[in-house]
Amino acid sequence: MSETEDVAALALDIARAAGGLQRERFGDERVIETKSSAIDLVTDVDRASEDLIVGRIGDARPRDGILSEESGNVREAESGWRWVIDPLDGTTNYAHGVPHFAVSIGVEHGGRREVGVIYDPMRDECFTARRGDGARLNGSPTRVSDEQRLDRALLATGFAYDVHEREMIENLEFFSRFIRRARGIRRAGSAALDLAYVACGRFDGFWEMHLSAWDVAAGMLIVTEAGGALSGFGGEPAPADGSKLVASNGALHDALLGVLRA
Amino acid sequence: MSETEDVAALALDIARAAGGLQRERFGDERVIETKSSAIDLVTDVDRASEDLIVGRIGDARPRDGILSEESGNVREAESGWRWVIDPLDGTTNYAHGVPHFAVSIGVEHGGRREVGVIYDPMRDECFTARRGDGARLNGSPTRVSDEQRLDRALLATGFAYDVHEREMIENLEFFSRFIRRARGIRRAGSAALDLAYVACGRFDGFWEMHLSAWDVAAGMLIVTEAGGALSGFGGEPAPADGSKLVASNGALHDALLGVLRA
Repeated sequence: MSETEDVAALALDIARAAGGLQRERFGDERVIETKSSAIDLVTDVDRASEDLIVGRIGDARPRDGILSEESGNVREAESGWRWVIDPLDGTTNYAHGVPHFAVSIGVEHGGRREVGVIYDPMRDECFTARRGDGARLNGSPTRVSDEQRLDRALLATGFAYDVHEREMIENLEFFSRFIRRARGIRRAGSAALDLAYVACGRFDGFWEMHLSAWDVAAGMLIVTEAGGALSGFGGEPAPADGSKLVASNGALHDALLGVLRA
Repeated sequence: MSETEDVAALALDIARAAGGLQRERFGDERVIETKSSAIDLVTDVDRASEDLIVGRIGDARPRDGILSEESGNVREAESGWRWVIDPLDGTTNYAHGVPHFAVSIGVEHGGRREVGVIYDPMRDECFTARRGDGARLNGSPTRVSDEQRLDRALLATGFAYDVHEREMIENLEFFSRFIRRARGIRRAGSAALDLAYVACGRFDGFWEMHLSAWDVAAGMLIVTEAGGALSGFGGEPAPADGSKLVASNGALHDALLGVLRA
């Protein structure tokens, strides 16, 4: 087994363990704390998931770096490998009892994305990719849709909680344009699952502003390995920090960019 | 067993059977036909589900009336009972492989809602109500949330495909207002499940324009029996045809109406 395969197996194992914890505690009375603002939730399950993931990476690979949503830069890499994790993507859904959320784990080596795992514990769906090996859903190869017409496309987006008024207005304008042109737009509440759904052809495209590196680290590799396309809003290479991201099945990418630029 | 209990047991049985058919065929190659416009999907599974439901009602209760999404008024009631069914709510999701859709069956007697069943076959979640008996999720009593603050509320809405430009613009305006005031807005693609999620406290409120009687017949009873509130956009009694519907946990109802009226 190559080191990358080793890392991929570990990432999958850890994602399933963290997701299992989330599934077990789902629907319990939860301690919801407010973070920077009243609208930003974090649950005790989020923290427990991060502890589990960070602990298991540290046990198995103590020299790898870790960047995590809850704690930021947990550890700098000494090995060339860095794990970029969102222990619980879709925290608002989780806190409200909506069974749509995921564990997202991306792993880079020398700054290049090598492994991605997104695990939806409530549906027991695992979206994975290794660079050059394609994308898989529960172990079976999967790919993006072949839809070529925007008026038949199902798109996804999100509205971050903590954006400035100006960005909120900008995304409302994009939403308004797309809802007239596409078959439908979904806002399901987990950017990681939105990207996973683009990768397996459920959604034909996705755009969002104001994401962070941990939201997209796994999803960007999975979309690419599934045959999809990624970019910034102007067609430039997709920023690794997820600040403005367009993901699509490839065939529709130019059409999406055209609507964003209009 | 009273006749209402009898009808409720039959509705549950039929909803599970139709949902089972949908689950089995999910992910198959599907025949997607265009209905009145390119953006209005109907699948062969939708038709097969309706055939199953209408056939089983006819076998068990040949004198009951049936109103169904696909076929309209299938039969006038001679018994005082009328079934209002959406064989597959969330058709676009289904056609695109998004595992979020439901069977919706409401039953009225003498024009009054007596029984409601919404079944999500992919999660195997069954939301039910009988008038005066409360609401249940998979047989266990459930109720609306007790959230009293709009800025902590998770709301849901939808955008119908076939609305006129004017109504589309109107709902974009409502969407824009709510997204600034609420914690989040979900657009998951099934109005029946949106109402079911309000009933069990996952969503705190819901509004939509341009629904139809079959979209809401089951959900309206389930929300009411779960302790929630229903109305039109101006606070008037909720129209049975679902044309403009606000559903909430009750505590937030006036706040939702205030935003719609603003």
